[in-house]
Amino acid sequence: MADIARLAGVSVSTVSRALSGSPLVNAATKQRVAELARSLNYSINVGAQNLRLKQNRTVAVIVPFDPETRQHLSDPFFLAIIGSIADALTDRGYDMLLSRVDANTLDQAAQFHGTGRAVGIILIGQWHHHDQLNQMALRGVPLVVWGAQLSGQIYASVGSHNQIGGEQATAHLLAQGARRIAFLGDPELPEVGLRYAGYLNAHERAGITPDPQLMLPVAFVRESVQAAVRELHARGVPFDAVFAGSDLVAMTTTSTLRSLGVNVPEDVLVAGYDDIELAAHFHPPLTTVRQPIVEAGEALVNCLLSQLAGERPQSVLLPTELVVRESTQTTTA
Amino acid sequence: MADIARLAGVSVSTVSRALSGSPLVNAATKQRVAELARSLNYSINVGAQNLRLKQNRTVAVIVPFDPETRQHLSDPFFLAIIGSIADALTDRGYDMLLSRVDANTLDQAAQFHGTGRAVGIILIGQWHHHDQLNQMALRGVPLVVWGAQLSGQIYASVGSHNQIGGEQATAHLLAQGARRIAFLGDPELPEVGLRYAGYLNAHERAGITPDPQLMLPVAFVRESVQAAVRELHARGVPFDAVFAGSDLVAMTTTSTLRSLGVNVPEDVLVAGYDDIELAAHFHPPLTTVRQPIVEAGEALVNCLLSQLAGERPQSVLLPTELVVRESTQTTTA
Repeated sequence: MADIARLAGVSVSTVSRALSGSPLVNAATKQRVAELARSLNYSINVGAQNLRLKQNRTVAVIVPFDPETRQHLSDPFFLAIIGSIADALTDRGYDMLLSRVDANTLDQAAQFHGTGRAVGIILIGQWHHHDQLNQMALRGVPLVVWGAQLSGQIYASVGSHNQIGGEQATAHLLAQGARRIAFLGDPELPEVGLRYAGYLNAHERAGITPDPQLMLPVAFVRESVQAAVRELHARGVPFDAVFAGSDLVAMTTTSTLRSLGVNVPEDVLVAGYDDIELAAHFHPPLTTVRQPIVEAGEALVNCLLSQLAGERPQSVLLPTELVVRESTQTTTA
Repeated sequence: MADIARLAGVSVSTVSRALSGSPLVNAATKQRVAELARSLNYSINVGAQNLRLKQNRTVAVIVPFDPETRQHLSDPFFLAIIGSIADALTDRGYDMLLSRVDANTLDQAAQFHGTGRAVGIILIGQWHHHDQLNQMALRGVPLVVWGAQLSGQIYASVGSHNQIGGEQATAHLLAQGARRIAFLGDPELPEVGLRYAGYLNAHERAGITPDPQLMLPVAFVRESVQAAVRELHARGVPFDAVFAGSDLVAMTTTSTLRSLGVNVPEDVLVAGYDDIELAAHFHPPLTTVRQPIVEAGEALVNCLLSQLAGERPQSVLLPTELVVRESTQTTTA
């Protein structure tokens, strides 16, 4: 900018005003500055302009990691939701600062707002720290969380209707003739807890008491799932279906069972949760509860931007849909 | 920080020095400031500390979009590589600024460095603007590009050995008995161009001249692929195999062919490129050329950080591996 000012014979602040379209600079000077800028290859871009105008157009998207499992950013559902948020932000002229924090100290996410690096925060998952999220909201950090709606929640959340989703999947397995349905997922995570509540509801409606041995509180990590399925099999606990807390868990369960000589769907029915792109193309194609990915990114971004515009945080519950495919259909059923 | 200074009866700069561990502040004061900071819930975090010390720890990762196709960030390969870069950056204490620029003006990516928002840039793909990337490198922008190694290249690139990969896939299809192999992909994109060069090489070695009608220069977008495959079929041009420029193209080709009553692998063999997670689980499981995703993220980040440490940019060619699955295996072959 200093070069343009020197060549144009005006002050740097005049150049700055001219480039940002200020009415304080006359048209002839604006024209001259614009031409000099072009000839000096000084691109007038939105990003740099916002920076000059001190308008921050960056949103922090935080994907926490579990320090015990050191879960890498490879879960297709997380990746798909990041892609969907990136698209929604790009459409609105925002950039995305992607970072990870320890899932035990979610409130570290607030630093991205506190230091002025981002106008607001989208956090993926509540993990075990609903309280920290409430604290952040109380401190006025613009925040929206992908997750469950919980009682006493101050912050805004966007998520699918996990309990209904859990009921849909379980009721379908029961309707297919399953009577001993294993549940795989950690119910202390709010979303998974609601999916499990749906599992219990569906059983109650059907007048069936699920065997507590069939509740396997595994982390959403391949190794944990493999170990849990192998142990269940080794203990000789009978089961005729699995409702997995995510599609990745359902797929890992299917391949682990196959390695033990148990076939899906002939011997055991398997249903998942998410409907990641892989689900329809998996072998066998996976029955699952669809969480709408594109709508999720839109809703998260809209929820954050409306807060920035001064509106009250409004949580969103996205509808779920049961998608029935081959993994829960036996020819005899 | 002002609150801490007021309560501790010291200046703001002393608080700042104390929190950053400066030897200029005596131990007793440091202790006092640390206690006040704790009681005021003033978290001493790496991000904020770096900001105070003016150490930027943010890398911009730019995924260009084609303004004509408005390609969304849903290609599983792009998402996987973003996840892998995010993991590599997190391991080294860096954040990732994810943004998109118009593929016709790749040099807009330089703004993230020029405005001080990022220490360097990782750009995904060369698109049609090798020249702009060279210009950025000449201007001293720390840059590494996921893509092909091209002649006269000044910037650093990381990518798989596309020509060898193209040869591997094509030679395999020829060995399986294919004689009329369609190629799907835009050879004007540098990586795809090298894969096509490999396709031509493999044909030449086998003493076969490929029919130019079998070269379909499609964009990597579902609709374009579907249209191209339908048109080839409608024109009655015979073909017994497809080498697709990406796994997404291979999968779209397979399902489009199926809708036309043509089965893979019975009627037509199909091979892809990438080996995304979906490939092994697709039905039929997809033969493809593996690009190592985890190594790619590591190599991109290492290449950028070594430049920041003052070393010369070093391009990296990652090895490819042909992974043979059912989509290219007929029982009669």
